[in-house]
Parts: sequence; structure tokens; C-alpha cells
Amino acid sequence: MVSKKIQAAFAGSSAIRAMFVEGKEMAKKYGAENVYDFSLGNPATPAPKAINEAIIDLAAHTDSMELHGYMDNAGYPEVRQAIAENLNRRFDTSFEFHNITMTVGAAGGLNIIFKTILDPGDEVIVFAPFFGEYRQYAANFDAVIVAVAPDLATFQPNLTDFEAKITAKTKAVIVNTPNNPTGVVYSPKTMEAIATVLEKKQQEIGHDIYLVSDEPYRELVYDGVKQDFLTKYYKNTIVGYSFSKSLSLPGERIGYVVVPDEASDAEDLIRGIEISNRTLGFVNAPSLMQKAVARCLEEPTDVAFYDRNRKRLYEGLTELGFTCVKPEGAFYLWVKSPVEDEEAFVEAGKKYHILMVKGSAFGCQGYVRLAYCVSYEMIERSMSAFEKLAEEYK
Amino acid sequence: MVSKKIQAAFAGSSAIRAMFVEGKEMAKKYGAENVYDFSLGNPATPAPKAINEAIIDLAAHTDSMELHGYMDNAGYPEVRQAIAENLNRRFDTSFEFHNITMTVGAAGGLNIIFKTILDPGDEVIVFAPFFGEYRQYAANFDAVIVAVAPDLATFQPNLTDFEAKITAKTKAVIVNTPNNPTGVVYSPKTMEAIATVLEKKQQEIGHDIYLVSDEPYRELVYDGVKQDFLTKYYKNTIVGYSFSKSLSLPGERIGYVVVPDEASDAEDLIRGIEISNRTLGFVNAPSLMQKAVARCLEEPTDVAFYDRNRKRLYEGLTELGFTCVKPEGAFYLWVKSPVEDEEAFVEAGKKYHILMVKGSAFGCQGYVRLAYCVSYEMIERSMSAFEKLAEEYK
Repeated sequence: MVSKKIQAAFAGSSAIRAMFVEGKEMAKKYGAENVYDFSLGNPATPAPKAINEAIIDLAAHTDSMELHGYMDNAGYPEVRQAIAENLNRRFDTSFEFHNITMTVGAAGGLNIIFKTILDPGDEVIVFAPFFGEYRQYAANFDAVIVAVAPDLATFQPNLTDFEAKITAKTKAVIVNTPNNPTGVVYSPKTMEAIATVLEKKQQEIGHDIYLVSDEPYRELVYDGVKQDFLTKYYKNTIVGYSFSKSLSLPGERIGYVVVPDEASDAEDLIRGIEISNRTLGFVNAPSLMQKAVARCLEEPTDVAFYDRNRKRLYEGLTELGFTCVKPEGAFYLWVKSPVEDEEAFVEAGKKYHILMVKGSAFGCQGYVRLAYCVSYEMIERSMSAFEKLAEEYK
Repeated sequence: MVSKKIQAAFAGSSAIRAMFVEGKEMAKKYGAENVYDFSLGNPATPAPKAINEAIIDLAAHTDSMELHGYMDNAGYPEVRQAIAENLNRRFDTSFEFHNITMTVGAAGGLNIIFKTILDPGDEVIVFAPFFGEYRQYAANFDAVIVAVAPDLATFQPNLTDFEAKITAKTKAVIVNTPNNPTGVVYSPKTMEAIATVLEKKQQEIGHDIYLVSDEPYRELVYDGVKQDFLTKYYKNTIVGYSFSKSLSLPGERIGYVVVPDEASDAEDLIRGIEISNRTLGFVNAPSLMQKAVARCLEEPTDVAFYDRNRKRLYEGLTELGFTCVKPEGAFYLWVKSPVEDEEAFVEAGKKYHILMVKGSAFGCQGYVRLAYCVSYEMIERSMSAFEKLAEEYK
């Protein structure tokens, strides 16, 4: 009696979720300290103290009807204004509260963007490898994901294939930088090149193409790479953001969407996104958490924690002979499987209690993803297991 | 560039929302104390103290990664177990944690239920008058709302028309008791009759029909009417609940869905609902708020507050000659328009700064809805305005 879409979802259920369950079982069997679970993108640093202090202060001193009540479907105007001003200060943009819609995380944000712009049969371009859930989000609105082939040398976007994949049906393009699963950060030059292709193609096909920037990892950049804001490169850019990673609040479901005034039909987009927030059943982003994050916009993300992990894992695996993309952002390491069939490699890893996610879950076979949002100690302990795994492929 | 569905939504935008904006403007113009806004179902009592105490205690003493982190998409198992046990105690049911999925409010709950059971073209039966958003929720999955004609004498379900409206395409029926907008509560006899029709029709059409019980007003009942739990009447019942009204937390978006084991394909339903929670972009219900409500399941709802309002408004309007359905639950008064065209009546009300919502917004012309989740003082003050309004129709 379940719907056809859900039956299909049963068949192709999430590889990451399966790993999560397998990891729990392994931990029970072998002891948690003997399992090296690199499967899940769950932040490994606690939320900043300021968040819990803000929550406590708000619960103690804010009028309950204001704190827990309904507000505009787009969120509290003063929260949206605070976010606009924070972005303007950091990125030299000029947003106001009306450009910001508070959302139930980035996943909620992407869904209300898609509901607003996608008709059945529309195409959404993604760059492989990509976060697998994009496929589900597009399918919610009967739109289709079209994947651009990866550039296996750099994992920067393959611009030739990108241009070739744009058709009259293309309504949107998703970029995700810093990238899950590769850790790659798109350079300003890359963004300019993407914008150039889009401007040209818009002319050719005679309608707008929206660039949807999914940037939950915006603050997680290393080696002096600068955070960037993509509305500066291309006017039809819509940004989806989440505080899940930057403030370690993934369970709270709090984020926002930015629609700049210069986007085509900006007013309709903003209104459509607000309506979608209501009619898809989100109604509004959680109220207390809206006010809490507004007080913590200047809180630094604990980048040093992840950076230490990044170096240890990247250097360790490289020394063992594995080929890895050096991550410039996010908290994922993208590793080439020593054999073509990366599922065999994932299985081999399990023998040593190493849990990795197969690249095909991200539309890119022959690679695996390691999430290093784990304890440093686990990475240290995992090294002898990786050594044994490397031995198998000598 | 916005999607066809959103273009349609622009055209038929919410009458309630329009009222909300109009009310704000009126308050600015005439002073808030001179405007009688009965348009919005926003709880008028503060959340119980225990909620804010729970939030403060959780933020101060719970490990941040546990409090703000990811959990199963269905919610924390211990929160779900606490809810199951609370329901079992109160309603003599026998749920366990696996029967409960934590959701982003009732609106989120209904959407993940619908995503799980509805295919394009499926029909969902509702009893007019009904909460207008059901139409949007069904449309999200390309299903169609079929409205049963109201019984204008009692506003209890019209069972003859109900039976006539069930077809081979009927996949679900929504019941909402205590009812928005009428305040009617379905009696056990009514529920038995609905179950009998459904059992018979399931046999005839050869497939299951799910009864979806939308019950955010479950605890808001008056005059000794008993709260009820509908899974006891009909095995294919799925319950959607929200803490918005019972604990005055509408902005927090926290609720749950119950799928009993005895429902057809219960395991698939539960799994489908969990997947839908993820893929529609909710991912999980807000984490801190899950833990907070779990500590407040025994908190009483402030029924006395609404009861006082109910009596004052019902008696006041009846004395003035208006015909009202006496509410047994929720916080709405359903009033017959003195003229056939209730939009003219709504407009006339505005002259005296009274804001009411037209019945056609609920699929039932000739009536208006008054939400009495307002201050008692506002109701008192509104009486002279209603007197002037009544004069017009003498």
C-alpha cells in the first residue's frame, strides 16, 4: 500500500545509512574503540558554549508567546536582518531581511527552493561526485538530476562536460563548495568560468538558469583558503545554508536561504519560497533556535580541530600508498580505490573494522569517502588497520 | 520562472494569511486595543513553565553532541518510548517506540504520511468544512482532495455522502476531531460508524483505505467530553499529532506520527515515513525540543483559559441573535453568516474592526470562523462591535 516513489526508495536505500547501522553492530561486537567508522558526516566538535548560553538566556527571559509562537513563515524579521548584516559585513554583499528565509536546515532549504522553481521533467545539473540526497530532493518535484562527469585529475568541475549537459530543460545547477564528498573548494576562477558558461547558455536557450549553492561547509576551509559567497559571481544564484556544521547543530534543523534582489523574478522566488516553507509542512524554522543562532553569528567554527584530523588522515593514507585528493575544505577525504570495484575495497576495509562509503553513492565509482569528523584518537588508532588494508594491495 | 504549482498558489493564496496582514495594518491605524482579530489559530496561553525549565536544564547539563546531534531519522528512541508509554497509560493502547516517529509539527507529519501512501491521482477524502492546507499537502504528491458535503444541522460527518464519495481511487480519509474550524468533537458512535463504512468499502474496492487522524487539538475538549484515540476504532488508522496547541509551542515545530502494528503493511509504512522524513528535507524533528517535550508529557493543557473564552463568545454572539455551533473542543467558533454571501459579512465585520475568516477558506460557504485563542479582555471589548454588526442584519 505504500506509494511507488517510496517503493523505489526501499530498493535504493541509503548506503550511508546502511553503514551507520553496520557501524553500530560492529561496535557492539568488537568494542567501539576497535571500530574505525568514517561513514557519517556528524560534526565531532561540541556546539560553542555561546549557543547553550543563548538558549538558557532565551528560555529564562523571553516572553513564551514570542519565543515559542508562530511568526512569519520566513522567520523572525530581526533574525533575518541580523543574518543579512552578518553576511554583508563578511562578504561585502548588500542583503536585507527580505532576502533571507529561515529554513529547517539546508535540506529543508533545498526542498523549498526546488518546489519553487521546478516543474515535472525539468533538469537539475550536478557535478559528480555529489551528495546523493540531491537526487531525492529533485524527485520530490518530478525533476531529473543530470550529472556532469568528474574531472578525475583535480575533481574541480569539468566545464566542457558541464556546457554539453545544459539543455532547454535545464532549470537549475547545484554547486557544493567546499565539497561533499571530495573536500575540494572551487576557486574564484572556477566560479567565474561557471558563471560565463551559464550566462552564455541562458542566452542560447532563452530562459534563466538558477545556480543553487548548497554551502553547509562554507566556514570549514583550510590552508588560508578564503570563504566565498557565490551571489557575487552570477546574479541568478540562490544560496542554501545550514548551521549544522559551523555551529555543530545538525539535530536542530536550522538554516536559511538567500535570494538576492538581482536574481530574475526575485520577488516571486522569495514569495514562492515562503509559501513552499508553509505548504511542504515546515511552516517555519524552529523558533527558539532561530533566536539562538542569531546571537551566535560571530562564533568561530572549530576549524583547527578538523584541520588536525585532515592532516593526520591525509598524510597517513598517502604515506601508506593510497591516492587521496587533498581536502581544502569540509571534513571529507576522497580516496581512490586501489581496485576498480570500490565496493570490494569497502568490503576489504570492513575486515579491519574500517567503515568507508562507496563512491557510487555519490555518482562516482572507483573512489571512497572517509568522513574525518571523528576523534583524533580514532584516526591515530585506525592507522595500523589501514596499514593492513594497504598490505592487501601491495 | 517559478513552477506552475507555485504560480497556482500565488493565485489562491491563503485567506487566513491575508487576514493576518490586514489585522496588523488595522492595529497600526486604530490601535491594537480597538481591533478584534479572531483570524489566527495561534495559542493564547504561554507554554507551561516546565517546558522552559526542561530546555534550560537540557542546555546546561546534556552533552552537546547528544543534545544537538543527529539521531535516527525517526527521532531519539527514548523520546519515542516515553510518548508510547504516555499514550498507553492514557488510552489503554499498546504502542512501543517503533510505532512513533517524531516529526516537524503536525504539518510535517501529514506530509510524510502522504508521501508514504499517495500516488498521483489518488483521492483523499475530507469532511467539509476542513483545514484548507490539506489541499496543499495532497497536491504536493499530485493527489486530489474529495470533500464530503457538510451536515449543516450538526456539522458531524455526513455519513451518507461519505460512503458515496469513496471510489477505487480513495487511498485515505482525514478526520480532524476536535475540529478546525467547527469546534465539533466526533462521538464514539460517529467513529464507529466511520469505521463501519470504511471496513465495508475496503472489501468492496479490494484495497486498504487509511484513516489519517489529524489531532493537534486532542487535549482541548470541554464540558466533560473525553479525549479519544482513534486507532481503537479502525485498524488502518495513522495519527498525526502536534504539541503546538497542547503545550503552546507552534513555532517550535514538534509533533509525532503513530502507526499501530495492526495497520496493513505497518512495517513498510513506518519505514516509508522515516525515509520521507529524511528525503522531504525534514531529516528529523528538532533535537532539543524532542527531549524537552518528552519531559513534559504529563503537563496539563490550560483548557480553563479557552473554556472561559468559549463561553463568553458563544453566549455573547448567541444572545445577539447569531447562529453558532456550540464548540465541544479546539478554540474555534463556527458562526452562520446572516447573509448567504459570507464574504459580505466578513467585510461588514471589518467596519467594526472585527476580523473573521470566511467559510469558503474551509470549503463551506455561508459561515465564518472565529478563533477565540485570544485574550478574554479582547472578547469582552469586542461585544459592542458585534452588537453594531448584529444591528445591520436586524
